[in-house]
Amino acid sequence: MTREKKIEIAPPAKLGILTVGLGAVSTTLIAGVEAIRRGICKPIGSVTQMATIRLGKRTEERNPLIKDFVPLSPLEDVRFGGWDVFHDDGYKAAENAQVLGKEHLDELRPYMERIKPMAAVFDPRYVKKLKGETTNVKQGKSLMDKADALMADMDAFADREKCDRLVVVWCASTEAFLEQKPVHKSLADFEKGLKDSSPEIAPSMVYAYAAIKKGIPYANGAPGLNCEIPALQELADKTGAPISGKDFKTGQTLMKTIIAPGLKARMLGLGGWFSTNILGNRDGEVLDDPESFKTKEVSKLGVLDYILQPEVYPELYKNLYHKVRINYYPPRGDAKEGWDNLDIFGWMGYPMQIKIDFLCRDSILAAPVALDLALFMDLAARAGLKGIQEWLSFYYKSPIVREGLYPEHDLFIQQTKLKNTLRYLMGEDLITHLGNEYYGF
Amino acid sequence: MTREKKIEIAPPAKLGILTVGLGAVSTTLIAGVEAIRRGICKPIGSVTQMATIRLGKRTEERNPLIKDFVPLSPLEDVRFGGWDVFHDDGYKAAENAQVLGKEHLDELRPYMERIKPMAAVFDPRYVKKLKGETTNVKQGKSLMDKADALMADMDAFADREKCDRLVVVWCASTEAFLEQKPVHKSLADFEKGLKDSSPEIAPSMVYAYAAIKKGIPYANGAPGLNCEIPALQELADKTGAPISGKDFKTGQTLMKTIIAPGLKARMLGLGGWFSTNILGNRDGEVLDDPESFKTKEVSKLGVLDYILQPEVYPELYKNLYHKVRINYYPPRGDAKEGWDNLDIFGWMGYPMQIKIDFLCRDSILAAPVALDLALFMDLAARAGLKGIQEWLSFYYKSPIVREGLYPEHDLFIQQTKLKNTLRYLMGEDLITHLGNEYYGF
Amino acid sequence: MTREKKIEIAPPAKLGILTVGLGAVSTTLIAGVEAIRRGICKPIGSVTQMATIRLGKRTEERNPLIKDFVPLSPLEDVRFGGWDVFHDDGYKAAENAQVLGKEHLDELRPYMERIKPMAAVFDPRYVKKLKGETTNVKQGKSLMDKADALMADMDAFADREKCDRLVVVWCASTEAFLEQKPVHKSLADFEKGLKDSSPEIAPSMVYAYAAIKKGIPYANGAPGLNCEIPALQELADKTGAPISGKDFKTGQTLMKTIIAPGLKARMLGLGGWFSTNILGNRDGEVLDDPESFKTKEVSKLGVLDYILQPEVYPELYKNLYHKVRINYYPPRGDAKEGWDNLDIFGWMGYPMQIKIDFLCRDSILAAPVALDLALFMDLAARAGLKGIQEWLSFYYKSPIVREGLYPEHDLFIQQTKLKNTLRYLMGEDLITHLGNEYYGF
Amino acid sequence: MTREKKIEIAPPAKLGILTVGLGAVSTTLIAGVEAIRRGICKPIGSVTQMATIRLGKRTEERNPLIKDFVPLSPLEDVRFGGWDVFHDDGYKAAENAQVLGKEHLDELRPYMERIKPMAAVFDPRYVKKLKGETTNVKQGKSLMDKADALMADMDAFADREKCDRLVVVWCASTEAFLEQKPVHKSLADFEKGLKDSSPEIAPSMVYAYAAIKKGIPYANGAPGLNCEIPALQELADKTGAPISGKDFKTGQTLMKTIIAPGLKARMLGLGGWFSTNILGNRDGEVLDDPESFKTKEVSKLGVLDYILQPEVYPELYKNLYHKVRINYYPPRGDAKEGWDNLDIFGWMGYPMQIKIDFLCRDSILAAPVALDLALFMDLAARAGLKGIQEWLSFYYKSPIVREGLYPEHDLFIQQTKLKNTLRYLMGEDLITHLGNEYYGF
Repeated sequence: MTREKKIEIAPPAKLGILTVGLGAVSTTLIAGVEAIRRGICKPIGSVTQMATIRLGKRTEERNPLIKDFVPLSPLEDVRFGGWDVFHDDGYKAAENAQVLGKEHLDELRPYMERIKPMAAVFDPRYVKKLKGETTNVKQGKSLMDKADALMADMDAFADREKCDRLVVVWCASTEAFLEQKPVHKSLADFEKGLKDSSPEIAPSMVYAYAAIKKGIPYANGAPGLNCEIPALQELADKTGAPISGKDFKTGQTLMKTIIAPGLKARMLGLGGWFSTNILGNRDGEVLDDPESFKTKEVSKLGVLDYILQPEVYPELYKNLYHKVRINYYPPRGDAKEGWDNLDIFGWMGYPMQIKIDFLCRDSILAAPVALDLALFMDLAARAGLKGIQEWLSFYYKSPIVREGLYPEHDLFIQQTKLKNTLRYLMGEDLITHLGNEYYGF
Repeated sequence: MTREKKIEIAPPAKLGILTVGLGAVSTTLIAGVEAIRRGICKPIGSVTQMATIRLGKRTEERNPLIKDFVPLSPLEDVRFGGWDVFHDDGYKAAENAQVLGKEHLDELRPYMERIKPMAAVFDPRYVKKLKGETTNVKQGKSLMDKADALMADMDAFADREKCDRLVVVWCASTEAFLEQKPVHKSLADFEKGLKDSSPEIAPSMVYAYAAIKKGIPYANGAPGLNCEIPALQELADKTGAPISGKDFKTGQTLMKTIIAPGLKARMLGLGGWFSTNILGNRDGEVLDDPESFKTKEVSKLGVLDYILQPEVYPELYKNLYHKVRINYYPPRGDAKEGWDNLDIFGWMGYPMQIKIDFLCRDSILAAPVALDLALFMDLAARAGLKGIQEWLSFYYKSPIVREGLYPEHDLFIQQTKLKNTLRYLMGEDLITHLGNEYYGF
Repeated sequence: MTREKKIEIAPPAKLGILTVGLGAVSTTLIAGVEAIRRGICKPIGSVTQMATIRLGKRTEERNPLIKDFVPLSPLEDVRFGGWDVFHDDGYKAAENAQVLGKEHLDELRPYMERIKPMAAVFDPRYVKKLKGETTNVKQGKSLMDKADALMADMDAFADREKCDRLVVVWCASTEAFLEQKPVHKSLADFEKGLKDSSPEIAPSMVYAYAAIKKGIPYANGAPGLNCEIPALQELADKTGAPISGKDFKTGQTLMKTIIAPGLKARMLGLGGWFSTNILGNRDGEVLDDPESFKTKEVSKLGVLDYILQPEVYPELYKNLYHKVRINYYPPRGDAKEGWDNLDIFGWMGYPMQIKIDFLCRDSILAAPVALDLALFMDLAARAGLKGIQEWLSFYYKSPIVREGLYPEHDLFIQQTKLKNTLRYLMGEDLITHLGNEYYGF
Repeated sequence: MTREKKIEIAPPAKLGILTVGLGAVSTTLIAGVEAIRRGICKPIGSVTQMATIRLGKRTEERNPLIKDFVPLSPLEDVRFGGWDVFHDDGYKAAENAQVLGKEHLDELRPYMERIKPMAAVFDPRYVKKLKGETTNVKQGKSLMDKADALMADMDAFADREKCDRLVVVWCASTEAFLEQKPVHKSLADFEKGLKDSSPEIAPSMVYAYAAIKKGIPYANGAPGLNCEIPALQELADKTGAPISGKDFKTGQTLMKTIIAPGLKARMLGLGGWFSTNILGNRDGEVLDDPESFKTKEVSKLGVLDYILQPEVYPELYKNLYHKVRINYYPPRGDAKEGWDNLDIFGWMGYPMQIKIDFLCRDSILAAPVALDLALFMDLAARAGLKGIQEWLSFYYKSPIVREGLYPEHDLFIQQTKLKNTLRYLMGEDLITHLGNEYYGF
């Protein structure tokens, strides 16, 4: 199974991570990376920084850290920037988000205050519930003009921060629901649409266009189409920009993609799965609205279908009643609580129940996901992996895949795919866990 | 990755499954198999009967049932027998166990009544809390005589039921704690010990000896040494009998080996894991005793250490405070409840909590595990796989492995190992989930 | 505190309990009473049958059963009947309801089959989600004609079953939301409305009118106006019929009225109370509809306000965020699950949380409440207590009280009120729990 | 029900509250009172400070605050002091206890630093697990000498702080188990024992003796005999000192005495009640020891027996399997988690379950209890209520009562007793919740 030669990967360089949105997730990311650099804390939750990877046989005991195995940009070489509709600097934005404690905010204040958001591309039709006046917004005759302005922002940032490479990560709110339209079908139509300022082009698509056009990797952390339209995939194929998405996998869905594969591994049936969430941050407020919730719900419900394969296992999963509820509940702030009830059945059909109560924190779970994606997307670009990065499905609620393939939601298959991709890139044997050699067959 | 030739596997034949102990697990197993044969219910929870296995690429869509892929004995060809210290037939024993509902017991009564236990090898020093008079017990001058009597039982059963092949599965209570002694070290010493009726040879070892001596596969569903001693491994190597163990993985430990790998995959830290069980069956009564519990506890605590690798990830798992409690609580009968609290921490060290309440049923989870093990162990014997069957770790709380290897507890690695072993046996490509061919790198 | 003379109470007699609706609650009630009479089970959950009442000082040790203390009709003297829109007899209706096990249904089958529902007053505008053809429905030119027909039913039932006394209990589905209209304001207007078949008169009001007109006690187990309109209270004052309501207090609301008084007793603050329900019976289906749910929600939300008195305790309860969700979830059938999260705060404002998971059974909790109400309402009638019976608030989610009073929701105050009313009726000292005499002050 | 004249109560004065032990509970109490005086927070959890009391009829709307109704010492007039085996001042002790956040500790630091513990009476036989060197300990030839030294401490404190009145509250660790011995039977024997330094006299008894001897009220917040021996009751009768105990009712037991009365009110049966606690403070460490736990367990188990009266309700509660487990689990610190499972049964015996997860904080719940007891005990002394104060049962896990009476554990009866006692003291009508006058019977 050894490969003769490894793929050529350009060496890492000073990397700029640009986030769309300077809110809860991105300020938590930025503050955390700086705190890690200062030795205040460890990069908990980050696979690129903390995980090891087994190479060769178990008995060889070769288990390097992933960051020592594949050539990633070290955190010391990372610089942060981004766009936001408000003028608040990184400190003010982090304070508003109420994720981090005073002891962390105080210590990192000067660093965070230096993070000033660039003017955003904004369209109130796509984000209805935003409170406050959006004063930090790009003006421009057409969406194409705004795309050009974003590209100029990227160049200026790289220049100012002396970054050789950039990555863009969408960390902003969920946009209003939008289905694929003709304007999204081809690059030509899409660019025409940008010039005509088509109302069917969401701001997120303008960001994605700007990044991909410049060959800069683009990762989408929210649900919504964003970069997942044929026009932008066509562009990515042309410029070689890696893209990936969508919707960071955290909280309840993370738990689902851990537990469902386990029950399925044992062929235990599921009669019902009821999931309710209570959360008090802006995300919760937006999703309390039935229409916005519908978008999210579709994405959340699909997870179990792909993992459980009811069409293959009708006796076990065909009658699964799956219900997801999200409830705005201000007493919690950014601390979210997910409560799940599973009605399972086993041998001879006897019923059992599992209840899971997850007292989690949204942005704390999302920040290291954003970091890993930025570093891996940059690696992909340097290794010449173009377009959709399916091997990063591990991080997404709703992974984008090439047409004709189904998305993989099982966290453990996703992890195997990710780690075997890294082994493959570096010319190491893939791991199959067979281990027959120890037993002589 | 394709292998040139597949391993030769003798064809399946009429298979006798002999259980040590005719209690909750074995009567649930026997009743269930008969109910499945009659079309009353589906073999829920059984991987051999219900699971499919993906072959080749995703796009090939080759996903046969495992039982159609590897040559297993069909349930129609299975016959049941076993030993017990009481004379109760299968119906009476199932009624006492209070696992199955009246509607199932009534319908299967004539079949279950025909299951009559053979006289058991018994030693009260190893099972202290058994209530009732143990009247169905083998007499004999020495343990070797009793081993001979067990071998004669096996022959007589095969003869009477016209079975060409046999498997033995330990489904009886946990025996008193026993450490490895000199008498367990070599086959010669062990056989001398049998002749001298050494008090350091537990009844379970006599059963294991008898089966292995005859080249019959032996699987151990309880904690305790049982077949896991050098003397019996030496014998298995000689006679070619497959062996596996130990302790069926069900309930709380099953959940642990599902969730811990998920948290570790995401590099989330663990500060504490508190597990408490309430259960009202005989198992609970025995384990309420602090000494018996200690044996179980050791086995249960190890699980997290192997999965989490605190020596590799000291910042994440070194300070994990792991506590397991088992509480006898009669109101529940065979229905067990496991409550877990996990104190986890993520990005920048922020704490979160997960609580899991599993309202499960012990024997309902164990019965299909016993069935799968019996069928796979027989397959192993026909395929010439001798001695320890590590690929069946998937089913055990405390998997036995070859000296020099560490046991694998991660349910998903165990599953990959099991399925890739089946693919290997049948000459199919191993699955690595790389899928680079779809993306042209 | 001793009263000179006790209130005169007419002796009990053979009592007919007529339920509106022959569904889950009423068949569970009827089957249970018959099972108790046969000695199959005990009247668990019934205060009239099982509770004792302390009389005099603690040291007197006078604690008779309530049924031995106040002159209630014994269960032997109770007969059941009722109305339903379907023709199903009591057995068939109980089987559909899926509350009782086969072992109970089989044993009581002949008795239950004899319960044949009388034709119902029905109006599809008030119960929209009913499935199946409603064939057992009263025809009649006007609502007044139907009221007359109901009165005739009552007479015929009393005659046939040789009952000297009757009670009517509404056990049917929640009707569509209806606010008080002019036609409900006075008896004269209401009777005119009956003659004109006003669409603002719900079927429940016709039943209530018929019962009250005849001086028969009427209890309302559902939310909705029902007997709670000035016209019918005017009528009750005239005929002397006791009335009470509304909405049997079971499940989550029962728990709320237990726990909230406890937290308030200790002056612990509440920042949030999130309640979610999953249930799969017809009730759940109806309430999954947002409009129907709104009615229920109003009733459920009020409970905490009355108990916690946020206007008296603004620092503790003014900012309480109270949210109630009901989710239709078919895997559960009549078995309901209520999950509550309470965000509380204590000394110096430090936050704490309480989570309650109640795996309950709707009709099992409601049936003894219906029985107690029937027996106590008949007692009230015989004791000359007219109109609203506030002392029965103990049984209701949303107790009716005399104008100018606030309803009492604290279960423990309700219990004190109930028991002290019984003591008062029988001329015993009221209990204050002072007990100063033991300590000489 | 009105009383002719009210009891004479001496006016309040400057009050010294002396705590035995300057640990988690007492520093939380002291810091909280000071924070309240400075307007930083409200006295959440304190009945004396926040609760109102209804006087007269509902319609009178007379609901004064308790502190405005009965003459309690205002918080402004309270001074704190105490004894401890360590020299740590109030700030250092609070910091060690890890109950209060940095923001509170910093602000109150100067005040807390002024609290210096007086030298304690200590005997290592009674508190085995104390870590660190106990350097702040009274020397003295006999226990009587130490009692004299304590009395001198009290005088000195009163003098220094200009307090006219004192109260002593035991807030220290649970002492080793001790049964009543002959030396505890009479005051004469006990005083002889003090002089002989009998090993059967625990340090807590020396404190109690010193306080009671001086006529100072004494409240016991821990389990253990303490003041609950005939010798000290004899002394209290002589000096008129009020005494009360034992074991502050907080956390899981508080919830039990809220929920059990509710289930009993509805005559719901209980088949099992399983309670497990995880806690990481010193209390948890001590109670992880099986022997110490036994003492606590006895006290905790009794609660349900008294509330449920299994002898009166054998069908409902005789077979209740009640189990309490306490587990030391350091990840939690002072934050305790109590998990309860209730197996209940209702109508026709159908089973249901309730699970309660209480994420609480030990000292946050205990501190206002200690405050209320101090203020009410002083009130009792001024009102001439001698000896056992049963009306304060509301605050205790295991209330002391006069010989011949059973203790009352139902939180709601306890509350009624407390409030009616206050009404009685002030010459107001007792409340019975009858309310018949509104309905004319």
